[in-house]
Amino acid sequence: MNYKKLGKILGKIMILEGILMIAPLMVSLIYREPPKNVFAFLVPIALLVSIGFLLQLPKPKRNILYQKEGFALTAMVWLVMTLFGAIPFVINGDIPNYVNAFFEIMSGFTTTGASILTDVTALSHSSLFWRSFSHWIGGMGILVFVLIFIPESNEGSSMHLLRAESPGPQVGKLVSKMKMTTRILYLIYLGLTVLEVIVLMLDKPVPGYESEQFFFSLLTAFGCAGTGGFGFLQGSMEMLHPFSQYVISIFLILFGCNFSLYYLLLIGKIRDFFRSEELRTYLIILAAAVGIVFFSLVWRVEDFPQVYTTEESFRHSLFQVVSLITTAGFTTTDYHTWPMLATTSLVVVMFMGAMAGSTAGGIKLSRIVIAMKGAYINVRKMINPRYVPKVKFEGKTLEPKIINDIFAFITLYFFILIGSMFLLAFDPINGQMVTIASDAGTYSVEHGFFSNFSATLACISNVGPAFEAVGPYSCYLGYSDFSKILLSFIMLLGRLEILPVLIMFNRKAWAKI
Amino acid sequence: MNYKKLGKILGKIMILEGILMIAPLMVSLIYREPPKNVFAFLVPIALLVSIGFLLQLPKPKRNILYQKEGFALTAMVWLVMTLFGAIPFVINGDIPNYVNAFFEIMSGFTTTGASILTDVTALSHSSLFWRSFSHWIGGMGILVFVLIFIPESNEGSSMHLLRAESPGPQVGKLVSKMKMTTRILYLIYLGLTVLEVIVLMLDKPVPGYESEQFFFSLLTAFGCAGTGGFGFLQGSMEMLHPFSQYVISIFLILFGCNFSLYYLLLIGKIRDFFRSEELRTYLIILAAAVGIVFFSLVWRVEDFPQVYTTEESFRHSLFQVVSLITTAGFTTTDYHTWPMLATTSLVVVMFMGAMAGSTAGGIKLSRIVIAMKGAYINVRKMINPRYVPKVKFEGKTLEPKIINDIFAFITLYFFILIGSMFLLAFDPINGQMVTIASDAGTYSVEHGFFSNFSATLACISNVGPAFEAVGPYSCYLGYSDFSKILLSFIMLLGRLEILPVLIMFNRKAWAKI
Repeated sequence: MNYKKLGKILGKIMILEGILMIAPLMVSLIYREPPKNVFAFLVPIALLVSIGFLLQLPKPKRNILYQKEGFALTAMVWLVMTLFGAIPFVINGDIPNYVNAFFEIMSGFTTTGASILTDVTALSHSSLFWRSFSHWIGGMGILVFVLIFIPESNEGSSMHLLRAESPGPQVGKLVSKMKMTTRILYLIYLGLTVLEVIVLMLDKPVPGYESEQFFFSLLTAFGCAGTGGFGFLQGSMEMLHPFSQYVISIFLILFGCNFSLYYLLLIGKIRDFFRSEELRTYLIILAAAVGIVFFSLVWRVEDFPQVYTTEESFRHSLFQVVSLITTAGFTTTDYHTWPMLATTSLVVVMFMGAMAGSTAGGIKLSRIVIAMKGAYINVRKMINPRYVPKVKFEGKTLEPKIINDIFAFITLYFFILIGSMFLLAFDPINGQMVTIASDAGTYSVEHGFFSNFSATLACISNVGPAFEAVGPYSCYLGYSDFSKILLSFIMLLGRLEILPVLIMFNRKAWAKI
Repeated sequence: MNYKKLGKILGKIMILEGILMIAPLMVSLIYREPPKNVFAFLVPIALLVSIGFLLQLPKPKRNILYQKEGFALTAMVWLVMTLFGAIPFVINGDIPNYVNAFFEIMSGFTTTGASILTDVTALSHSSLFWRSFSHWIGGMGILVFVLIFIPESNEGSSMHLLRAESPGPQVGKLVSKMKMTTRILYLIYLGLTVLEVIVLMLDKPVPGYESEQFFFSLLTAFGCAGTGGFGFLQGSMEMLHPFSQYVISIFLILFGCNFSLYYLLLIGKIRDFFRSEELRTYLIILAAAVGIVFFSLVWRVEDFPQVYTTEESFRHSLFQVVSLITTAGFTTTDYHTWPMLATTSLVVVMFMGAMAGSTAGGIKLSRIVIAMKGAYINVRKMINPRYVPKVKFEGKTLEPKIINDIFAFITLYFFILIGSMFLLAFDPINGQMVTIASDAGTYSVEHGFFSNFSATLACISNVGPAFEAVGPYSCYLGYSDFSKILLSFIMLLGRLEILPVLIMFNRKAWAKI
């Protein structure tokens, strides 16, 4: 392990986190919050910048990073960022318990949006901003952001970090022009975010919050861009006007697309854009899921408390399917009370996630398509052992290694899901009744199997809200500290797609070489 | 496809099924059942034997079977056996609806034990016998049984069928002595079954059923041997004396072991027996799961209706863990009402299943161990790309192909689970309340997410009883015909371990060559 080089990069990122924290600090000053809220950001900024500078002092003997170092570093950077990112909430008193604050900001950086807060409206502006801003930072990945601006780092090292941090099975062979491309991807990300803020400003403000429209639009755009899902009003996005809800749905669909597709559009390769197999899969699954959920709501295949107009049924179907397949986790209604056909469809899209190379979590559609094709190849090989697969994905012949890595990934994904669900069963919260007040009325649910199952799924897929006792109108506060720390790591496993975190925890990765 | 050869083997198996049906026919005569019960077996026997003979007439040009033919044939044989095996129930009126009868006997052959019957005590002796006998037939696999007695079939062909029908990732290189070994395995199977009947006869009879002791012992032994789980009294094994419940637990543990281990014992390789990694994993997981469930019951980590003595807590913990990890699915108490820690542990062992080469279903422990080792290899390779894995399982170095096939299997297993759960969401039963009367009292549960999830899991793992609305004191009757047929195929996918069924449904497998 090249500790000095690792320290140098970690230090740079700590300094950057310090710089990024100036934004919520400014918010705190603009809204004339009490001094402790200002200190809440000043203290971690001071810590991050000073430790960050100290880490720059040792001179590394070797300037390149090996693959293992890139992966272990990525996981470590995210952990360190979370450890410091939790500090503001503890100092300003919005989340006095450090474990809760750690959970909340891990949920922010990993763009999960799972919360331990029972009332977000009690938060200060600066806390609300920092929460949503963390989605925006975590969505595209912070390491790559830093590395494209670090002149000394060479392309090879950056490549390992890009691979470790980018969602999806393959990055493609962009190495030569990587910095250039990555810069363009960041610009698209920034551009779409700004555009969403502008479009959201066209709506009427939320009644009672007229002065907050710009602030809310900004937070919403941050949450959409990172497909995070932290809310800032009671009932997530329920109080927003239908126009804003449609706007959010559309932007979520856009942020669930592989960003390289926009790059293709920008450089004029429009035919390649529409030829994308994953995009077509994404749109077909979206349409099918919205259709099924809409059908189950309109025909009331099973009785449920809410009474919607047809437009409302469509809007909520669209919003919830989009919000859960992109793993954002915003809500406009209490989908937990919906018919089983609707809730099961939502569970299924939570597994899937959106496209690789987007900011979404989950298994990712490309992995699912490739796994299906891999299974088909296996069947064909059993039928004819001399069968030479010419199965393609996105126009490229699938290498056995890619297919095998994806099978391994999906297996681990489910093993982690089951393992975490098992550990949650030790929590004393199990069997307790939770009262939930939502647009479906006030009702009690038991913290049962579906709660733990969906909580784990919502965390590993970076969705956030789950079902039953941890549904959209509830929160993760009731879990024990052990469960909260466990779920925080599950979120990190989901965001970094397992391997980097496993490498960080492997002793061999830290051996001196 | 060598249709004539396929027809010949299929015909032989149909004749064998006809011969096997003589057993329930005899039961029907012994218990002096009405003529329609005798006809119920005479009709399918006549059909099976005559069609079976007709299929012997064409002379195949080629006498060997290719791999694809072996696999497709295996799935087809099981389907045909089920189609005919359902007939008796319809004729004697015990299960008048053919779809229900198909579900019931598929559940029998696949050793699942999921039932659509609300009251098994209303069944005739011959029906009860046929149900439990189907477990015994399906447990070891019928094809291999036939093939070792078919003189003409060559070793290569039998090998494909053995591979298709045997549970677990690898059969080992037994080809040369295959027939010999398989005969010994069948003798062990028969011997253990007879031994269990004898031991069960030592117990006091069930009060009110004094004259049935031998009959019940036989049915119990059939269910244990095949790890099936069909009951014959209200509440499965609840009414049996503790002695019998302990005996069943012990024999289930034995039937959950890889049968080759007994072969090792028989030929005196006792050190090899104790060196088995999978056996150690099996015993450790068993002990841990029993311990956790016992702990959760005795300390009442969560309140639940039943009040047990310490001995009862231990006995039920042992029985349920053993019954679900071996995927038998017998029950002694209503485990659905247990604390979440206990129910979650049971769900986890249902995924696992017992050892490869046993009659149990589920993913199988060897696959789970190999997948974990495969994941470890992947992590080590990321750390050091030149890492040459020397990871072993059962003393043999793991080939990449074995690991990759297992990752592919587990991925498909979960995809099928999620897909089936999604299709069950279309069933009109969802959201309905079901009243359950058990040793935990009478209570109502909603047919919700956990019902469909656990029903699918219980079918693909060949367990049988699930949770919530399809829990141990409920049944699958409420599902629609579509769902019942779906779940029947899920059982078959589980029993034949996916690939043979997929091959049967692939058009390419049926091309003439």
